[in-house]
Amino acid sequence: MEYIHQNFDVNFKYGVHFSSHLFDPANTCLSAFLESRADAAFQKKLLVILDGGVAAAHPGLPDQITRYLSAVRGFQPAPEIITISGGESVKNDLPLVFSLVDAIDKYGIDRHSYVIGIGGGSLLDLVGFVAAISHRGVKHIRIPTTVLSQNDSGVGVKNGVNYKGKKNFLGSFAPPSAVFNDSHFLTTLDSRDWRSGMVEAVKVALIRDTAFFEWIEEKAVALTSGDMPGMQYLIFRCAELHVAHIGGGGDPFESGSSRPLDFGHWSAHKLEQLTSFSLRHGEAVAIGIALDSVYSFLLGWLDEASMYRIISVLKNMQLPVWHPLLEKQDGRPSPVVAGLEEFREHLGGRLTISLLKAIGTGAETHHMDLDLLYAAADICKKLQ
Amino acid sequence: MEYIHQNFDVNFKYGVHFSSHLFDPANTCLSAFLESRADAAFQKKLLVILDGGVAAAHPGLPDQITRYLSAVRGFQPAPEIITISGGESVKNDLPLVFSLVDAIDKYGIDRHSYVIGIGGGSLLDLVGFVAAISHRGVKHIRIPTTVLSQNDSGVGVKNGVNYKGKKNFLGSFAPPSAVFNDSHFLTTLDSRDWRSGMVEAVKVALIRDTAFFEWIEEKAVALTSGDMPGMQYLIFRCAELHVAHIGGGGDPFESGSSRPLDFGHWSAHKLEQLTSFSLRHGEAVAIGIALDSVYSFLLGWLDEASMYRIISVLKNMQLPVWHPLLEKQDGRPSPVVAGLEEFREHLGGRLTISLLKAIGTGAETHHMDLDLLYAAADICKKLQ
Ligand SMILES: NC(=O)c1ccc[n+]([C@@H]2O[C@H](COP(=O)([O-])OP(=O)(O)OC[C@H]3O[C@@H](n4cnc5c(N)ncnc54)[C@H](O)[C@@H]3O)[C@@H](O)[C@H]2O)c1
Ligand SMILES: NC(=O)c1ccc[n+]([C@@H]2O[C@H](COP(=O)([O-])OP(=O)(O)OC[C@H]3O[C@@H](n4cnc5c(N)ncnc54)[C@H](O)[C@@H]3O)[C@@H](O)[C@H]2O)c1
Ligand SMILES: [Zn+2]
Ligand SMILES: [Zn+2]
Repeated sequence: MEYIHQNFDVNFKYGVHFSSHLFDPANTCLSAFLESRADAAFQKKLLVILDGGVAAAHPGLPDQITRYLSAVRGFQPAPEIITISGGESVKNDLPLVFSLVDAIDKYGIDRHSYVIGIGGGSLLDLVGFVAAISHRGVKHIRIPTTVLSQNDSGVGVKNGVNYKGKKNFLGSFAPPSAVFNDSHFLTTLDSRDWRSGMVEAVKVALIRDTAFFEWIEEKAVALTSGDMPGMQYLIFRCAELHVAHIGGGGDPFESGSSRPLDFGHWSAHKLEQLTSFSLRHGEAVAIGIALDSVYSFLLGWLDEASMYRIISVLKNMQLPVWHPLLEKQDGRPSPVVAGLEEFREHLGGRLTISLLKAIGTGAETHHMDLDLLYAAADICKKLQ
Repeated sequence: MEYIHQNFDVNFKYGVHFSSHLFDPANTCLSAFLESRADAAFQKKLLVILDGGVAAAHPGLPDQITRYLSAVRGFQPAPEIITISGGESVKNDLPLVFSLVDAIDKYGIDRHSYVIGIGGGSLLDLVGFVAAISHRGVKHIRIPTTVLSQNDSGVGVKNGVNYKGKKNFLGSFAPPSAVFNDSHFLTTLDSRDWRSGMVEAVKVALIRDTAFFEWIEEKAVALTSGDMPGMQYLIFRCAELHVAHIGGGGDPFESGSSRPLDFGHWSAHKLEQLTSFSLRHGEAVAIGIALDSVYSFLLGWLDEASMYRIISVLKNMQLPVWHPLLEKQDGRPSPVVAGLEEFREHLGGRLTISLLKAIGTGAETHHMDLDLLYAAADICKKLQ
């Protein structure tokens, strides 16, 4: 029997830039990046897709963007900036996916042009997916505008939209060309988004970096009440840990079942869905972290004092640590607990859940004891 | 300004296996591959999507597949084999994309399970796309059943569907887990598919391998009238050259504008679309190769004798070398020629067209002279 073997590597690289007032004419952060990618032989095109929540909070922004991009040498911005509402609902809207694909077609965005997404994690997940499937992948730049997207979702390699109520059922792995974090955008976030976005930092600190957890613990109250320099450090360090994990963890496109960065997420994804996304992603993850930390304690993996410290940090951030859907409903299983199998399926293969051995040290289990899980949920209820 | 740099490689590998009667219980080619990927900890799932043209030509095949896959250790086939009509029309059917996504959901195909596409290049392009966007990419195995898909499309890394009449507007780069070429399937191809599939071999020989072109030239008449051992060699060598180009050409996911394997394709894609896909892909490429070979001659790049040899090979394969849409229509530009800009856009960036310097030697141009192109079309018309 004859046989041909294929084997190749594809390199992916991108920078995560930190700046403020990106579209100020004097700020060359974005324009210098773009001009470094210009080609003397032809004009490249730019299409901006903007989060309606950001546009509403920053009047004049579309004009400012238009002026800024028009001055970039070698690039031709599309004649309109496309503004769509922000938030999770944009990920539940298949016709919107295709209307953005239509815009890529209409404005002649080719594989050398750039789609620029400006907004929260939801908008960026949608825009990344649209870019990934058009022309077998057009380049995209992310300008995340929430704490969560600046420290986690926007700096990673995944995109996705929900399908028939299933979180991120459609999506792909498609690294951006570059990411620009602009701290000025954070000044207009509402309190829920400001606070809940910090949870991803708590998460990555818990599985990876004791010192960072201690820093967060010390600053939790100040951060929660609006400490901007503190928030900038939190975002930088959290993004750095995420980027290092993706690039250095040996499995950037998640072909295995192990996903330490999904600590606290199995129940969070299910809670988001069950509450029709009335919980913010970060709020749901706060509950998920609380649950899996207490479960780690009950399992004998995590000491009691550490467990209490984790709950305290979350409560100091004024985040929830429990939800009624974690309980049995009239004697029937909790719908969150019932979602474990769905999570396994999304992950593929064996059930693999991240837990904690200590603050700063994640570990995995392939079995969840349901009685212990309900007991953990009960403790969370008491501690809330 | 702070900055984080991301940089990683992703490795892709897969084998292209050559066999015959793959689903014969005694043939362990596919089962051995699957069992090598089994995991003692859990069952992996299999979902087969079958080309209706293949099913019609091979009665009993679905049962045979079911029996074969049920015996593979560590895998659980879905309770049904999904049979869809074959041919280009499946790539023009967005609801079909989503009904296959629904099947992936319904049958719990996770990121460790496999979707197996069995059929022509059209079905494989569709199935590859569906697999690529579900759960951010589930694994897929290709079992190509046409000459074209066994020697070209099925062994590569691209997938795609058409969108609003635009060829492959939606798609991605997603290498398969494995490819199994079964020569027995070829025995039921209709003559147009048998003949037109050989064009990709002519193409790759012309840009890469003089000796292979000479072999094809010598065998063209015999191949056309059904020489199966000859066809098996043609497919093997053509697949080998494609695989080598993709893995060794330095740009497997086509981030640059250079696509030597698209020799003859700029006009072919447009012709397929303009004729509502009544031309087979290979027939359209035959016309495209003829046009660009004559153009290469008129440009002074290719000698006259070589140009005639190329036309003769195509004619010996009973393939078209001209189409009325290459002419001006009532004084207005030929719609194929008008499609050059669209091709540039699909490619991105500068216009880059593959031409010939000699038989076995491709070369690129960034400018097409329209008068010369019409003159080339005229010569093709006379030579048809
Ligand atoms: N791709 C990944 O790797 C990944 C990782 C984590 C989370 N996510 C996804 O990210 C999404 C959540 O993103 P998010 O938390 O950024 O929220 P979001 O994008 O849903 O935005 C929340 C709200 O804030 C508004 N908004 C955004 N920026 C603003 C600003 N600067 N000022 C005022 N209002 C603003 C939006 O319009 C929206 O109403 C979820 O869908 C989650 O699944 C993806
Ligand atoms: N992804 C890539 O890299 C790539 C490369 C080249 C071509 N393509 C695409 O491949 C498609 C063309 O594929 P194709 O030429 O294989 O044709 P096809 O898939 O359109 O099939 C042609 C016909 O043959 C039937 N058929 C398939 N196998 C058969 C068999 N063994 N016996 C009897 N009938 C059979 C089908 O049902 C269909 O009716 C085009 O869409 C083209 O764009 C993709
Ligand atoms: Zn998260
Ligand atoms: Zn082709």
